[in-house]
Amino acid sequence: MTSTVHAHGAPEPTGSTAYVGIGELVTCDGTGEVGLGMRRDAAVVVEDGLVAWVGESADAPAADRRVDLEGRAVLPGFVDSHSHLVFDGDRAAEFAARMTGERYDGGGIGVSVAATRAASDERLRELVAARVAEMRAQGTTTVEIKSGYGLTVEDEARALRIARELTPETTFLGAHVVPEEARGDRTAYVDLVTGPMLEACAPYARWADVFCEPNSPHAFTEDESRAILLAARDAGLELRVHGNQLGPGPGVQLAVELGAASVDHCTYLSDADVDALVQAADTTCATLLPGVEFSTRSPYPDARALLDAGVSVALATDCNPGTCYSDSMPFVIALAVREMGMTPSEAVYAATAGSAKALRRGDVGRVAVGGPADLAVLEAPSHLHLAYRAGVPIARTLATAADRTGE
Amino acid sequence: MTSTVHAHGAPEPTGSTAYVGIGELVTCDGTGEVGLGMRRDAAVVVEDGLVAWVGESADAPAADRRVDLEGRAVLPGFVDSHSHLVFDGDRAAEFAARMTGERYDGGGIGVSVAATRAASDERLRELVAARVAEMRAQGTTTVEIKSGYGLTVEDEARALRIARELTPETTFLGAHVVPEEARGDRTAYVDLVTGPMLEACAPYARWADVFCEPNSPHAFTEDESRAILLAARDAGLELRVHGNQLGPGPGVQLAVELGAASVDHCTYLSDADVDALVQAADTTCATLLPGVEFSTRSPYPDARALLDAGVSVALATDCNPGTCYSDSMPFVIALAVREMGMTPSEAVYAATAGSAKALRRGDVGRVAVGGPADLAVLEAPSHLHLAYRAGVPIARTLATAADRTGE
Ligand SMILES: [Zn+2]
Ligand SMILES: [Zn+2]
Repeated sequence: MTSTVHAHGAPEPTGSTAYVGIGELVTCDGTGEVGLGMRRDAAVVVEDGLVAWVGESADAPAADRRVDLEGRAVLPGFVDSHSHLVFDGDRAAEFAARMTGERYDGGGIGVSVAATRAASDERLRELVAARVAEMRAQGTTTVEIKSGYGLTVEDEARALRIARELTPETTFLGAHVVPEEARGDRTAYVDLVTGPMLEACAPYARWADVFCEPNSPHAFTEDESRAILLAARDAGLELRVHGNQLGPGPGVQLAVELGAASVDHCTYLSDADVDALVQAADTTCATLLPGVEFSTRSPYPDARALLDAGVSVALATDCNPGTCYSDSMPFVIALAVREMGMTPSEAVYAATAGSAKALRRGDVGRVAVGGPADLAVLEAPSHLHLAYRAGVPIARTLATAADRTGE
Repeated sequence: MTSTVHAHGAPEPTGSTAYVGIGELVTCDGTGEVGLGMRRDAAVVVEDGLVAWVGESADAPAADRRVDLEGRAVLPGFVDSHSHLVFDGDRAAEFAARMTGERYDGGGIGVSVAATRAASDERLRELVAARVAEMRAQGTTTVEIKSGYGLTVEDEARALRIARELTPETTFLGAHVVPEEARGDRTAYVDLVTGPMLEACAPYARWADVFCEPNSPHAFTEDESRAILLAARDAGLELRVHGNQLGPGPGVQLAVELGAASVDHCTYLSDADVDALVQAADTTCATLLPGVEFSTRSPYPDARALLDAGVSVALATDCNPGTCYSDSMPFVIALAVREMGMTPSEAVYAATAGSAKALRRGDVGRVAVGGPADLAVLEAPSHLHLAYRAGVPIARTLATAADRTGE
């Protein structure tokens, strides 16, 4: 298989393109094994950034341009529904120290907060754009980006303004952690988050999130988390929750109670938590972030148990400088299979249609006529290779809706 | 950091090139932390495929071409001292089945043997070249390639002939497994390996290897392994051993007894095995292959204990279609840190100078004036990022001796 497709990030030429010779097309249309909707010897025609036709390769209609994928697999571009990309500063040494045996307690975030506050708009914009480009080069076509390293009214609003230039899926996370200077008066910080900070950030955010974690001293309690999420909902934002990461906690129940789209991490769950997620499966996803457990040498969540119970499971990277500086969805898929008991097919579904559901996006994470042409292609004949070829960069973005002519 | 370096695999232009602005240069010259020999703000001048000068970036001499690496880290290209790249056939479904809970017993190798025998020379040559190119795109500049999916006189010799076109580090592994058609008479197969097969293969091989594993029915016993290795040594080949992978066994002791350059896997070791490796540290390396444990969901070797005892430790991929279809040295480094207790610096050393020692190559796996210009560059400021940014393709080859003018 020699490469005949255009370079990373190059815009589609004007007109229509027929991608033929697709050995395996994963549509995630809900049919077949775990809903993957696989087709063999397929073709996809893309026109004006949209999928215009899907069918047998032999039946592909004429198009302005024809690209033979020579048996490669095509799937929906990955949907990374949880990332923290707006930061400056280097914490590689903290990672190396942790790997020698220190236990992660969240204390290192102050380094990122200080560096992010000190960075110019231009520098932050370059950093975030480079990270999004790196994701795109690995097959990710939709990315959620949180604030949370500013933790002042101005710095949080700036982070979201910059993120909003790159994705509509922006999340206000002023409640990432109580910043060092505010630790003498937590109540005042919660008031700031629910008041002026929320007001300044809401115009640039679709979502609000909170790090609800009683096991971490500078994260937020159940009551604080509820107050912040309710205020955000009143301001028109939709909700997501960081919950049950470091130990048992109220995050899952709170997320379900408030109808959040997702509760993320879900490492320590009670039977009642699992039951609540099953009942809420149409509304609230459990987003698993195994890159964090890899990077912090922590126990992995039990994805197998969640899937068997009927929970809606999504996968994402949590890309952030402290607990997981990986933005590779293929790596997350490989970990989900090796460490969490997911099949390769379940992991691919959870990283596309599953994580799209966690963002309440019906249009992405699947390949359907009329939908955006957000496609990934593998240097391999099957989606199974994403886990089989762990660590090898076999995925890249083939086309995205943003390649639309004139956009 | 925007890319200013030449594309993957593009040959160096004629004349000399000064790579300046190297934020961190890892030389592996034996000085400093674990022998990494790190320099800050460095430059390297490459001329005619060799390193012509190393020093402070500000002092770099004039050259025909100047490339500013803008703070990126440069290190020796990775040395992948253990791979099985000469095969055809797809075993992704076997991998997926194993991940649902089946235990690996080595039985699936027959699929690769049949497909490899059936492939044309041209097809095999294309497959191997594509795999070497994939490695090179991830920063690997020296690769060892074994035969072992032919298992006839002609097919083994063909595999080595093809491998030899791409690397001098070729290894005769007719004793990979007793092939299905020979299982009625193991003695006859060992006679074939030590007789006509060795004779046909020796001209194309530097090394001989054997899968010495009493815990696998179709691998080789201690006596069979010794006979094969002694015959190979008599034929002028140097020795390596697959040993102690699936359970305790004689592989390590045999490797030390015969002065092999490396014993690979080393997952199940007795105290006496570790002692033997310590005594033989100048001669025999322990090559760890954690991609295999990742891909087979097996316990990892205890690298920490080996390093603490004073064993010479190397890292490699074991890239093969059955137990680890990953050829990513950065992924191996990340696993070594996460799963085997190595520090990021120890892992980088073991994947460069350490694995060069396992190939008895003093010239590669380091950056030294007069040595080959086999360099990797990271899209990151430090070698720590290879483990910190697990799964992200941040490494690529910057230059190799094969870029030499006219070569
Ligand atoms: Zn997070
Ligand atoms: Zn091997």
